[in-house]
Amino acid sequence: MNHETITPLYWQDEALVLLDQRRLPGEERWLHYTDVAGVVTAIREMVVRGAPAIGIAGAYGMVFAAEAAWRSAGADWRSQWQADVQALRHARPTAVNLAWAIDLMERFAAGLTGAPQAAMLGEARRLHEADLAANHRMGQLGAALIDANATVMTHCNAGALATAGHGTALGVIRDAHAAGRIARVFATETRPWLQGARLTSWELSRSGVPVQLITDGSAAHVMRTRGVSWVIVGADRVAANGDVANKIGTYGLAIAARAHGARVMVVAPRSTIDLATASGDDIEIEERAGEEITHIGGQRYAPAAVTAFNPVFDVTPAHLVDALVTEIGVLERPNRETLARLLAAAD
Amino acid sequence: MNHETITPLYWQDEALVLLDQRRLPGEERWLHYTDVAGVVTAIREMVVRGAPAIGIAGAYGMVFAAEAAWRSAGADWRSQWQADVQALRHARPTAVNLAWAIDLMERFAAGLTGAPQAAMLGEARRLHEADLAANHRMGQLGAALIDANATVMTHCNAGALATAGHGTALGVIRDAHAAGRIARVFATETRPWLQGARLTSWELSRSGVPVQLITDGSAAHVMRTRGVSWVIVGADRVAANGDVANKIGTYGLAIAARAHGARVMVVAPRSTIDLATASGDDIEIEERAGEEITHIGGQRYAPAAVTAFNPVFDVTPAHLVDALVTEIGVLERPNRETLARLLAAAD
Repeated sequence: MNHETITPLYWQDEALVLLDQRRLPGEERWLHYTDVAGVVTAIREMVVRGAPAIGIAGAYGMVFAAEAAWRSAGADWRSQWQADVQALRHARPTAVNLAWAIDLMERFAAGLTGAPQAAMLGEARRLHEADLAANHRMGQLGAALIDANATVMTHCNAGALATAGHGTALGVIRDAHAAGRIARVFATETRPWLQGARLTSWELSRSGVPVQLITDGSAAHVMRTRGVSWVIVGADRVAANGDVANKIGTYGLAIAARAHGARVMVVAPRSTIDLATASGDDIEIEERAGEEITHIGGQRYAPAAVTAFNPVFDVTPAHLVDALVTEIGVLERPNRETLARLLAAAD
Repeated sequence: MNHETITPLYWQDEALVLLDQRRLPGEERWLHYTDVAGVVTAIREMVVRGAPAIGIAGAYGMVFAAEAAWRSAGADWRSQWQADVQALRHARPTAVNLAWAIDLMERFAAGLTGAPQAAMLGEARRLHEADLAANHRMGQLGAALIDANATVMTHCNAGALATAGHGTALGVIRDAHAAGRIARVFATETRPWLQGARLTSWELSRSGVPVQLITDGSAAHVMRTRGVSWVIVGADRVAANGDVANKIGTYGLAIAARAHGARVMVVAPRSTIDLATASGDDIEIEERAGEEITHIGGQRYAPAAVTAFNPVFDVTPAHLVDALVTEIGVLERPNRETLARLLAAAD
């Protein structure tokens, strides 16, 4: 992997190649997938993670779905592929980018005649490239909001590894750093998967951005004693009223930020905004196995008798979001009206 | 260890015996100490932890200090022991109970004639027993504040393992559970040392209290969706104005609690209140090695290039403390005046 261009996935020789993010930063292992079942497993088991990257992986998964259906049914292929389409759509529930990409690919498929593979692959590639372009646009828009000599905080990994490249939250931080405005980044380690410790600190240190790792519980203390001006995060779904589902812990950071005069910037592409979801209350919050908390690195830390509650996302209400940065524009304190207007203007 | 009486330390055959809390719950290893240097190392390396338990260990350490000084200087022993006294006092900086116990033992020593060992040991044992009695008193006082069918949250381990037994915060939870008022306890895992995962969940499950483990970052989400009525924690130092230093993460929990109508109960013995410290700003916050964050169980998770910032306590301002429970009484929203009055009435 080139130091300049971190990417979590690419297409090569009729295979989707995914960087196994469970092994980073210790090991850089690339896994090859050539069918829908493999892609579904890779998404569910977090080989690939991050809402936009999951969407792109899902789009390539739709190429495999179309191929398989065409092989088995020829011109009647669209009557055969619904099981695969649904499996991809529901591989993980919270990030709307996955469903968005599946819907987009399905609508695209409806207009095809003849063998679908080449056209489907072209469309997946278009979506892949559009995500990268969106990140660069968001990076510029978000960086413009950041004052000189800023200390910022980020949570989880909304970086190149979570997207086609560059990143959403980390794209903003990269561009602000390139503009000379970042004094320091505090990255929360982000239990239980430690995306902050493993991925964000890895990405930022490779990009030359000064980063210090903290435990999730240290965030409020750091805000109080170190003068954090922005908490910059990604999103897995933005509801029609501006509520934001993102990695568990984001909501607590947003409450603490408000208490300290730090602002909250949510950086997410258009594809993360889900007008079909009225508010955060309507977002399904994925709960994963308690073993992700009771065990670390295969070793059990909690007693065998103890269970863990492991919701992996939370909802930050719109009133705690100071800026929503998308590739189609920036909203301060987003709400139902301004979000609808932004999307209407872009469509 | 008896299931009914969990204790982290005892005196036997002229040795201080400490349960090695770094190994729990996987292994129950007891270590024997017979000199000051050993006790200092045990405190610094967290074989024994928890503000009251550190204080008790320090008191027994003073027995070793007196013994050694008597052996080397006879009746002039008090002129010889200051290096040991200072080493014990400064083994860890934030928990005031350690300095309090050292001061108490030093004042007691000033009145002794002849060989000091037996008298010093008697005084350390008295302090040890008084802590246990204080915990049972606080347990009753705190439990009386809790309504029926309560869902509560606790952080770190302010349990039997952090004290002479029964615990401060966990003493309240135990007594409230015995009174039939606890529906569920959420225990935060408490990175980086995982005292919640390793110690609190172990203690509570052994006591038959229904406990679920959560990541530190989940706390605000759990408050919003699970109806937490009290966040119950211990303290390492309470300043004269009621500000509370406690395990890193407490401050963020207190901010989130206030945002959700959950109340914050700080349970700490008289010995934790430090009138010589005007406010939380004057409390030294211990910073430990970054490796406690970058590594878990000996395995590195963050890239080698990345450093971590590891403050292990934070300060919760008095206005976020709904109840301060001590063995000499309960204060709602403590402040400089009510704290001074409480202590004056008890002295």
